[in-house]
Amino acid sequence: MRSQSNSKLAVIGAGAVGTSTAYAALIRGSARHVTLYDINTAKVDAEVLDLAHGSQFTGVADVDGGDDISCVEGADIVVITAGAAQRPGQTRLDLAATNVDILRDLMPQLVAHAPEAVYLLVTNPCDVLTVAAQQISGLPAQRVFSSGTVLDTSRLRWLLAQRAGVARASVHAHIVGEHGDSEFALWSNASIGVTPILDWTRDGELAFTAEQLDEVTEEVRNAAYQVIQGKGATNYAIGLSAARIVEAVLQDQHAVLPVSTVQSGLHGIEGVALSVPSIVSATGAEPVLTTPMSDAEIEQLQASAATLKSSQQALGLS
Amino acid sequence: MRSQSNSKLAVIGAGAVGTSTAYAALIRGSARHVTLYDINTAKVDAEVLDLAHGSQFTGVADVDGGDDISCVEGADIVVITAGAAQRPGQTRLDLAATNVDILRDLMPQLVAHAPEAVYLLVTNPCDVLTVAAQQISGLPAQRVFSSGTVLDTSRLRWLLAQRAGVARASVHAHIVGEHGDSEFALWSNASIGVTPILDWTRDGELAFTAEQLDEVTEEVRNAAYQVIQGKGATNYAIGLSAARIVEAVLQDQHAVLPVSTVQSGLHGIEGVALSVPSIVSATGAEPVLTTPMSDAEIEQLQASAATLKSSQQALGLS
Amino acid sequence: MRSQSNSKLAVIGAGAVGTSTAYAALIRGSARHVTLYDINTAKVDAEVLDLAHGSQFTGVADVDGGDDISCVEGADIVVITAGAAQRPGQTRLDLAATNVDILRDLMPQLVAHAPEAVYLLVTNPCDVLTVAAQQISGLPAQRVFSSGTVLDTSRLRWLLAQRAGVARASVHAHIVGEHGDSEFALWSNASIGVTPILDWTRDGELAFTAEQLDEVTEEVRNAAYQVIQGKGATNYAIGLSAARIVEAVLQDQHAVLPVSTVQSGLHGIEGVALSVPSIVSATGAEPVLTTPMSDAEIEQLQASAATLKSSQQALGLS
Amino acid sequence: MRSQSNSKLAVIGAGAVGTSTAYAALIRGSARHVTLYDINTAKVDAEVLDLAHGSQFTGVADVDGGDDISCVEGADIVVITAGAAQRPGQTRLDLAATNVDILRDLMPQLVAHAPEAVYLLVTNPCDVLTVAAQQISGLPAQRVFSSGTVLDTSRLRWLLAQRAGVARASVHAHIVGEHGDSEFALWSNASIGVTPILDWTRDGELAFTAEQLDEVTEEVRNAAYQVIQGKGATNYAIGLSAARIVEAVLQDQHAVLPVSTVQSGLHGIEGVALSVPSIVSATGAEPVLTTPMSDAEIEQLQASAATLKSSQQALGLS
Repeated sequence: MRSQSNSKLAVIGAGAVGTSTAYAALIRGSARHVTLYDINTAKVDAEVLDLAHGSQFTGVADVDGGDDISCVEGADIVVITAGAAQRPGQTRLDLAATNVDILRDLMPQLVAHAPEAVYLLVTNPCDVLTVAAQQISGLPAQRVFSSGTVLDTSRLRWLLAQRAGVARASVHAHIVGEHGDSEFALWSNASIGVTPILDWTRDGELAFTAEQLDEVTEEVRNAAYQVIQGKGATNYAIGLSAARIVEAVLQDQHAVLPVSTVQSGLHGIEGVALSVPSIVSATGAEPVLTTPMSDAEIEQLQASAATLKSSQQALGLS
Repeated sequence: MRSQSNSKLAVIGAGAVGTSTAYAALIRGSARHVTLYDINTAKVDAEVLDLAHGSQFTGVADVDGGDDISCVEGADIVVITAGAAQRPGQTRLDLAATNVDILRDLMPQLVAHAPEAVYLLVTNPCDVLTVAAQQISGLPAQRVFSSGTVLDTSRLRWLLAQRAGVARASVHAHIVGEHGDSEFALWSNASIGVTPILDWTRDGELAFTAEQLDEVTEEVRNAAYQVIQGKGATNYAIGLSAARIVEAVLQDQHAVLPVSTVQSGLHGIEGVALSVPSIVSATGAEPVLTTPMSDAEIEQLQASAATLKSSQQALGLS
Repeated sequence: MRSQSNSKLAVIGAGAVGTSTAYAALIRGSARHVTLYDINTAKVDAEVLDLAHGSQFTGVADVDGGDDISCVEGADIVVITAGAAQRPGQTRLDLAATNVDILRDLMPQLVAHAPEAVYLLVTNPCDVLTVAAQQISGLPAQRVFSSGTVLDTSRLRWLLAQRAGVARASVHAHIVGEHGDSEFALWSNASIGVTPILDWTRDGELAFTAEQLDEVTEEVRNAAYQVIQGKGATNYAIGLSAARIVEAVLQDQHAVLPVSTVQSGLHGIEGVALSVPSIVSATGAEPVLTTPMSDAEIEQLQASAATLKSSQQALGLS
Repeated sequence: MRSQSNSKLAVIGAGAVGTSTAYAALIRGSARHVTLYDINTAKVDAEVLDLAHGSQFTGVADVDGGDDISCVEGADIVVITAGAAQRPGQTRLDLAATNVDILRDLMPQLVAHAPEAVYLLVTNPCDVLTVAAQQISGLPAQRVFSSGTVLDTSRLRWLLAQRAGVARASVHAHIVGEHGDSEFALWSNASIGVTPILDWTRDGELAFTAEQLDEVTEEVRNAAYQVIQGKGATNYAIGLSAARIVEAVLQDQHAVLPVSTVQSGLHGIEGVALSVPSIVSATGAEPVLTTPMSDAEIEQLQASAATLKSSQQALGLS
């Protein structure tokens, strides 16, 4: 007899991001089984124990893992957080090259053990690494995608909700493009409830000017730097973002989320991974090609794609 | 020392709607305390027992109640589901008159015991009864509102989500106006994700034509009749809708929901209660005056208001 | 690619118990898919609509169903609530005979469409019907069981928690035996936290005497009668109980719950279904044979079994 | 009008434990408002941002904080995780003395801003610091307690559940005494479901011998060391434990949890804080004086108290 609701999440990398993802997933009940893999034996064993020790206070989900990659066997979704951190003096491109090399080693092993899984890249630079992971694995584009601007979008909505005086769930706005400096907000279709964002009033006054919206975008772009400066890394928000995406896959939700997939034609963009609103389900992620954009926004998207393309070429990715 | 998180929900009426509301609220943990009041002693005592008997499987919330109205003492929110059901041969207007009379008796007693509560009307015709309850109680308009088209909007999103092939949470569309035959969908700003609804494609084809959207509206308008014909009443969906609104109040969410409040000026509408997207928080509900509408939609809203106004006048409400 | 977390619950019978079970399961997220089957077309269609109409306020679960039994296809668990209600002048045995006949018709159809499902009987008299359903289907005993005294145990804990002044989750006590008049509490091992129940103090005084515990048992035994007298039926608490058991199966929890299975040897009891603490998982339910009982409790269990045995014989069940 | 369900949790200390507590509390919805305080401005600001950035994916709770202690104003519960970490060459007693000094500075400031709050100590050595915090603040013993052996008990149940083959929620066993080397399990009343733990069978064989239970206790005692050795600290499980206790207070649960309170007479123990099953509610924690213990267990508890007493005396606590 088959074991029902037997979903399995594998998290690759037992650093701050990987363990925050596993922690959030266990508390939320995102998967029935969570496994954590890392090559650092002492670290991964300790993290698995620390996660398991709290399990009286989570639901039925269990957690295991270790330094043997066979622990990902049969995973339905694999979240990749492994990667080098930027060293002093190292350029971002050098970092990317290092992480591409890690994927060259890792992806074939993962696909061997979890051939039917959906792969979610969280390691940065996540857009470029999505292209690499997809090329290395040879999997269809929809099955290899990254968290992209899901986190940036959450940051945006938090800022807007506070200023608008509404629940975060009533803010409809997206950050799209590169998960990085060329990202931008799709202001032309942003709304609070059903009200276009520039028309929203609070205490009888317009809540936002176009300039203030630009400042909010800038604040979102700088958010990661602010956090890294103060604590050395970001982990909690990205962990929650990853757990949220995991649920969209494992529950076959068909939720619209701005994840990053390798594009094939959207506004002329080919072979570059970047984020636009996409439908996320058990079969992976598919960009919504009808996402409305102003001419200026289309140009911003193409500029973001060009930035990413040049990084890819520098890394020798086709 | 004060007892924290000590929120109290009072449900008036132990019929199918009142008990479904209490059941949903207990399962969801909408309030710390739930009390159920009805004049039918045997019925209310049995319903309280049946709800309490399942409490091993809900959270910490407890339930009590009975036929003594002092059980609503100190409630933070009061949900009114009490009212006569339509008898054969009785017109809708006669029914409304009966239920206005019930409110004349009930509201002063409720306000005496729960003077600081927010009041949520669920009894039908809920728009007209909201006007009556507000006038009888003399409370500010924002503290006396009805579930309005929250349920109709949920019906709409369920239909649209299925046809669009997306999660219900990714459908942004609202039914507004009267909770009744003159209600209509705000198609001019409806979207799936951020895509305008008429542009949404599924498997490469447009998912909706304008005609099909009209049919969906019609299906929503007839939904209650369909359910009543088959089972004699509606209770489950309205119970969930009420529990959802209760949470917006008790958690001070500032959520945007299409509840029905007595309007004072929106598109020239005065002294009539009908639904538009409104901000729901601990202080009650306030309509979003900047809700965008096409000229045709404004006309539909005014027509809906006129229908309601004539009912009110026939009932002797100012 | 397989669709993960794709659990399916089928509820048989669209009466008050069946629909309350479906409602609780949808709100709790007990299963990804819920289907409701009944031979009364108008009723089942209306109930499915009423449940679906609230789905904006539940999680991702969806609901369908109708009068075509093929809707149960591929269910992981089937909850049977169908059955005749007691008519005036009808004896309980006549009622049982009618419901056994219904199972003779129903079980083969269900097993044809859901051959790998676990079957949970909720229709009364649930113990006797469990024996019938198991014999008719020929399925292993662990895959055909009933909610038994899970509901009675919830009633017990609610009463004890109130009197002890503790959270319901800190009360450890079970009702066992027949789901009916011969049921009894396992007082010999009941505790509040880890304190034996007779030693529990509140405000410095013992909270319970042995006589008071007997009264509590009596109150539990009469609870269903009290509810039925006041509202004509019980539905909410049994709906929650069924949803809770469904989760134990679909999440493969190995939770200890007092469900009713056909016994084979426990204290000499053979071929009779009654409740003792049992491990409930994806493969069904297995009684905990090491459940401690005093000599008096063993006698009560055997007496309960004898009562059930004579009912079975009168019904022509072996 | 008052704002309902307006519970506030203040977390003191933005290190790994404090932020894991806040993260778990936000995901679980343990409180409506969470505030994080630390003297390290850059660190606390970054942690608050990282927590807030994920808030699209949590419920309605919001988070703020900073280096100004007035952020704790009006908190209903204060969780203290601040404290020095053990430096190389420093004895545990020196560490304790440092942390007592921190409390001497901190407690009066906290009580000035949150005079009605319940105080939960998480900093180690938590038992000794509970005594210090209670003496410094002059608050009643029930309002100043520590997480004690709640975490150790969770570790114990995880280990036992795996070996017994049951859900963690079906394991009833407690670690009591010092949160440290002299802690021990109350085996005399431990059970799986209702079965005494030594009688529990799996696949027809006894699951545990007395020797194996001793080994499990030893494994629990060493668990923190194992985790610290591998990752340098423990944070995830203690964060969940703290969030769980917070809910017992804010929801006025009267849950039975093994927290550590200053004892006044239990088995002759006076003026020492250690853990036994206690009732945790809005008014704080009260030990269950009727907790059953064998003579050997009473001796172990008294030995644990003696160990703690000598630490207290070395620290100059009365």
